[in-house]
Amino acid sequence: MSKFSLFLSIFLAGSLLVHAQSDNGVLRMDEFRSSKKRDNIIIPDVGGYHTLKCDFHMHTMFSDGLVWPTVRVQEAWQEGLDVMAITDHIEYQPHSKDVIVNHNRPWELAKDMAAENNIIFIKGTEITRATPPGHFNALFIGDASGYVEEREDNSKDKEAISKAVEQDAFIFWNHPGWKVSQIEGSYEWVDFVDELYKERSVHGIEVFNGFGFHKKALDWCVDHNLTVMGTTDVHNVIGYDYNLGEIVHRTMTLVFAKERTEESVREALEAGRTVAWASKYIAGKEEHVENLFNACVEVSPAFHSKNDRRYFEVTNNSDLYFEMNLKEGDGTAGIVLFPRSKQVITAGADQQNLTYEVGNAFIRSDKNLIVDIPLK
Amino acid sequence: MSKFSLFLSIFLAGSLLVHAQSDNGVLRMDEFRSSKKRDNIIIPDVGGYHTLKCDFHMHTMFSDGLVWPTVRVQEAWQEGLDVMAITDHIEYQPHSKDVIVNHNRPWELAKDMAAENNIIFIKGTEITRATPPGHFNALFIGDASGYVEEREDNSKDKEAISKAVEQDAFIFWNHPGWKVSQIEGSYEWVDFVDELYKERSVHGIEVFNGFGFHKKALDWCVDHNLTVMGTTDVHNVIGYDYNLGEIVHRTMTLVFAKERTEESVREALEAGRTVAWASKYIAGKEEHVENLFNACVEVSPAFHSKNDRRYFEVTNNSDLYFEMNLKEGDGTAGIVLFPRSKQVITAGADQQNLTYEVGNAFIRSDKNLIVDIPLK
Amino acid sequence: MSKFSLFLSIFLAGSLLVHAQSDNGVLRMDEFRSSKKRDNIIIPDVGGYHTLKCDFHMHTMFSDGLVWPTVRVQEAWQEGLDVMAITDHIEYQPHSKDVIVNHNRPWELAKDMAAENNIIFIKGTEITRATPPGHFNALFIGDASGYVEEREDNSKDKEAISKAVEQDAFIFWNHPGWKVSQIEGSYEWVDFVDELYKERSVHGIEVFNGFGFHKKALDWCVDHNLTVMGTTDVHNVIGYDYNLGEIVHRTMTLVFAKERTEESVREALEAGRTVAWASKYIAGKEEHVENLFNACVEVSPAFHSKNDRRYFEVTNNSDLYFEMNLKEGDGTAGIVLFPRSKQVITAGADQQNLTYEVGNAFIRSDKNLIVDIPLK
Amino acid sequence: MSKFSLFLSIFLAGSLLVHAQSDNGVLRMDEFRSSKKRDNIIIPDVGGYHTLKCDFHMHTMFSDGLVWPTVRVQEAWQEGLDVMAITDHIEYQPHSKDVIVNHNRPWELAKDMAAENNIIFIKGTEITRATPPGHFNALFIGDASGYVEEREDNSKDKEAISKAVEQDAFIFWNHPGWKVSQIEGSYEWVDFVDELYKERSVHGIEVFNGFGFHKKALDWCVDHNLTVMGTTDVHNVIGYDYNLGEIVHRTMTLVFAKERTEESVREALEAGRTVAWASKYIAGKEEHVENLFNACVEVSPAFHSKNDRRYFEVTNNSDLYFEMNLKEGDGTAGIVLFPRSKQVITAGADQQNLTYEVGNAFIRSDKNLIVDIPLK
Repeated sequence: MSKFSLFLSIFLAGSLLVHAQSDNGVLRMDEFRSSKKRDNIIIPDVGGYHTLKCDFHMHTMFSDGLVWPTVRVQEAWQEGLDVMAITDHIEYQPHSKDVIVNHNRPWELAKDMAAENNIIFIKGTEITRATPPGHFNALFIGDASGYVEEREDNSKDKEAISKAVEQDAFIFWNHPGWKVSQIEGSYEWVDFVDELYKERSVHGIEVFNGFGFHKKALDWCVDHNLTVMGTTDVHNVIGYDYNLGEIVHRTMTLVFAKERTEESVREALEAGRTVAWASKYIAGKEEHVENLFNACVEVSPAFHSKNDRRYFEVTNNSDLYFEMNLKEGDGTAGIVLFPRSKQVITAGADQQNLTYEVGNAFIRSDKNLIVDIPLK
Repeated sequence: MSKFSLFLSIFLAGSLLVHAQSDNGVLRMDEFRSSKKRDNIIIPDVGGYHTLKCDFHMHTMFSDGLVWPTVRVQEAWQEGLDVMAITDHIEYQPHSKDVIVNHNRPWELAKDMAAENNIIFIKGTEITRATPPGHFNALFIGDASGYVEEREDNSKDKEAISKAVEQDAFIFWNHPGWKVSQIEGSYEWVDFVDELYKERSVHGIEVFNGFGFHKKALDWCVDHNLTVMGTTDVHNVIGYDYNLGEIVHRTMTLVFAKERTEESVREALEAGRTVAWASKYIAGKEEHVENLFNACVEVSPAFHSKNDRRYFEVTNNSDLYFEMNLKEGDGTAGIVLFPRSKQVITAGADQQNLTYEVGNAFIRSDKNLIVDIPLK
Repeated sequence: MSKFSLFLSIFLAGSLLVHAQSDNGVLRMDEFRSSKKRDNIIIPDVGGYHTLKCDFHMHTMFSDGLVWPTVRVQEAWQEGLDVMAITDHIEYQPHSKDVIVNHNRPWELAKDMAAENNIIFIKGTEITRATPPGHFNALFIGDASGYVEEREDNSKDKEAISKAVEQDAFIFWNHPGWKVSQIEGSYEWVDFVDELYKERSVHGIEVFNGFGFHKKALDWCVDHNLTVMGTTDVHNVIGYDYNLGEIVHRTMTLVFAKERTEESVREALEAGRTVAWASKYIAGKEEHVENLFNACVEVSPAFHSKNDRRYFEVTNNSDLYFEMNLKEGDGTAGIVLFPRSKQVITAGADQQNLTYEVGNAFIRSDKNLIVDIPLK
Repeated sequence: MSKFSLFLSIFLAGSLLVHAQSDNGVLRMDEFRSSKKRDNIIIPDVGGYHTLKCDFHMHTMFSDGLVWPTVRVQEAWQEGLDVMAITDHIEYQPHSKDVIVNHNRPWELAKDMAAENNIIFIKGTEITRATPPGHFNALFIGDASGYVEEREDNSKDKEAISKAVEQDAFIFWNHPGWKVSQIEGSYEWVDFVDELYKERSVHGIEVFNGFGFHKKALDWCVDHNLTVMGTTDVHNVIGYDYNLGEIVHRTMTLVFAKERTEESVREALEAGRTVAWASKYIAGKEEHVENLFNACVEVSPAFHSKNDRRYFEVTNNSDLYFEMNLKEGDGTAGIVLFPRSKQVITAGADQQNLTYEVGNAFIRSDKNLIVDIPLK
């Protein structure tokens, strides 16, 4: 562009000004603002299920969060969530000097905005016991009042959970490794949780909470067939905690649901059909992580061959991120698949398949997804 | 970078994981986050005065805003403000069903955080009368209680302002062109404001409110020697309203103060030493806009000559943005000076100076700053 | 994130350093680089055809461009093009003092890289006559040598084109409005082009060339059934000309092809199945623009109703950008559909459909696409 | 912003179209483009010297680079370099089938553009011997012809350098750790370099080459008093290698020069007044790294105290990036100073100073800068 055309642009912008001021002497200086849209996070449906983007753990100023409940809907809308739950603490109300305690209010205040913006809004709460055992989220509850308000007395832990159990809630254990130093250097599958588990009163565990990957929790989910959860546990404005650009979205649970309805979300959570997503990592049970990978990543037939090598294009049809390291076969040693992008790999002429480890996809605390890429 | 080195990078990232998990089984997946910094907005000091970045109009959930007061401090800190005021509505309390009305609370809740983060936090409030005359902000008040709570009755307008006058507040008229259709197609210098003006009870007017440029207000400020103000009037989280990238910061008032103290801010406001900044535009009294431009923009001596033309480098040493159109002289027709950037202009060999109009710098509603660039 | 965790991050980064240096004393300081990927531009297939992203007009240092031919392949790969042509000038060789003139070399030097990266690379050239008639691109040529080398003599225009005609090239008229001042204030359907048209020797016209929208060319394409083309005509590095972020990609022609093969590209160009895309605008024949819009934009069934209004979600499943203004019906007045995003519209309870004008989609120089949105 | 105002914006954009098309039927669809500016990289002057941003190692298509020489000037201008050298290989001419070999041409073709854009353009070349000893850059040469053209024969190494020595060139050893596997697992201070060193024929070493940190080279520079160099060695377009955003600029040498002239650059290089900058790291001799840090980072007097702790603001007045870890004293454990940003630290009430290690600032291969922060 020459200097002349820069000048031309100035002139055009000038004309915009003239136009804008004509009606009433107030000039609007804003232009299209991309904050005013709902992102369409691209993750394909998996195995006939809808892939719903969900965050089941958020706070507002009705407990120790810093925003009005509608802000959580606005954030969820902007960031392309399908499903959300506000889960303010029952037993922790640091703003009670200024805010009238009412555990049902966050839901009441935000539900219309969620409905008008096509967000499935699940009523929930956080049962906030001392650590251990720590905190539990209860989803699909009715009335949030009437819970135990006292927090520190472990003898009331069971009673505190009971109310949610009676309400037939979906209950998950939050950030089990949090405050780990208080429990002597490590976090464990504590007796209280074991008891809940045996009574079928706990149904999932947070494997990802914010940017924390609670690795043991992944093994516990796999070994006890509990649902893998990923949540933000956001207290501040979401942009303060998650501003990392193209690769990193807010932490979330991908739920593979029959329909885009609250009932289907519940059915999928109970069936354990989830993958947790945080930073550039995903974690879940092998079956779901593998199906998700296969739904997202596509390998073309050989499009070229040269010097006894065949060339294939690997396409990432999703907003997820994958790192693939070759484990077996004569092929390209490693590739990074950025969101919505492609790479080329090559393989020996007779190679029928290649085996890769997906470095950012966890199926146990110490095990990554292994994928076998057939070559055509 | 070859494919091999991409693979190398994967390996390094892998090592990071192994390291991170070693102590307690919780892996932190976050990296350095640039949301956790205070921006250093670069605007030079002007004529021996400190250039302070100020926003004197913000709301919290204590009136009709959507965030807790400390969020306003956090936002101001991140965005590099030196001075802020929370100015919740006295007469408008839509959250009163949930939040206990106390006009002093926003200031009380946020003042420690401001002090610990080196932000000058001025106590203020918004007096919210029916339009016309509309709304007024009062800064440097003491007690925010005891104001008139009723809003619609124009007969109480004077009484509503009086409390602020008694407190020796700095008072400015907010967004005079807002709700303009209610006052028959145009906004005017209304009698009530004229009365305040004559009693020296109004000291400034918002020329920029958010992205609205109230052009008549600039003329009124110039003609009546009132202080030019630019504010966000933010209700939502700031990132929802201002996400426009490099050029557009939040709207603010640049105050040219003797010291970086509350007293000096007041002195400067009373003396009218301000420029308002919104989107890519600035507005103010000619003297201040001109001094600001000259402090920001530097023209080198001729560094080259060719074919009877001399070459000069124009440097924008600030985060402001300038568009310059040639008005007089044999020189480059126009340049855009992006924040912290440079352009080259050329001029005829004998040209002693060039006259440019600064298209984004307003000194009246219909008049832009004219600058004379001496050539050496 | 607390200050403590910031410190933690520092420690982790430190460990990365230690690891990296261990083998040979050279530390690699780069991390994953997103420049090393092929973008997957998301535009759905249309009416059973593959939507191929194509740029048929580029220069290299073998005429007046500034890069080696392989750079054009690299750029095309990064930016997600399926199809490209290098079309250096036959008659204009400003680098001939340093570069040995050989019109076939750009293609020879770049073809292997294109083949190995899954890009359909079409051999072409630019026939560079004086204006008028101006320049023509010939695609699908064989040998690029033996063309008329002289440029200014209009009596050789026909001969210059004849070589391409003999080679059965697909020929399009470039930027017809360029250098418009030389032809007295306007550009016209010149006799020479009319002659070519009658002989079926010109098959398309550039409606978009870089950021220039040659509006008359769109009408000529519609009225004479010529193919609508959009190209970059890039001479510099692509990033110098196109750095405008999320909304603006490089200018291109979207070709609706039966297969992703060179033969199918040709068939589609000859059948005129194209839409040109530049900045945030698209242009083409009504049928194709309409089909493209309908393939990209999806309207949900009503998901909510309130106060006699029904709510619908409008999803943009593409990387294109659309602005929609209501023309008829009781509905939301206007929306902006950013790439891969959603908006909500509302309509009166009994409204069966809404009619919008798509402000950025042109089907004639003075006519925008009108779409009728059925409501369910 | 309400939906209504979005619609308003559409309307304004529409008016822009109407205006733009009026004159000649070609609509310009581009807007202001920030690629058309020279960045003003902010690094303060140090100790009375001008801090010049320099890249002394670049290639063009006249050896094995991929761009025309003027593109290197354009890139340097955009990225805010003060000083540049094109250093094409003498002995390596892979494009010679198409490009006429002439070692002086890159300089001839680019020098006018450099002069017109206020860039100090130093004539240089790369002497490209087999490894070891590898490659050497010679700056401030006159004629680039007449050098040894043969590359592989080590017996001609001395002769190859001699021509540069005769021209009184400033000579530095490039990327000593490159191709390290060829020299059995490690790179060493080879005899040939030792001989040059003793004859004072080598004056600097590349510590940073692209994203490679040759750590031993830093020790050699310190121990032998050679000049620390950082260069891009760019072959491709710069944006392909360096697209990492706010923190990462292209690799460069910061030269502390008496004047902004070629002579002063040479004097500073010979005196060894440099710091190399790559990715988020800097490296150099302790004195210069320390002075640079102190010029960039400013600590305020205590602005607040509370609970026996005093609060200080640390400002990074530069585009550099610093990580600081506490080594000694009762203070904040660590901070990250992003470019042009601030952090707060606290210290015990009686603490007179704090000692930090600057994790990204190297003064030897295994030693970081230690800074002592006085507290007032």
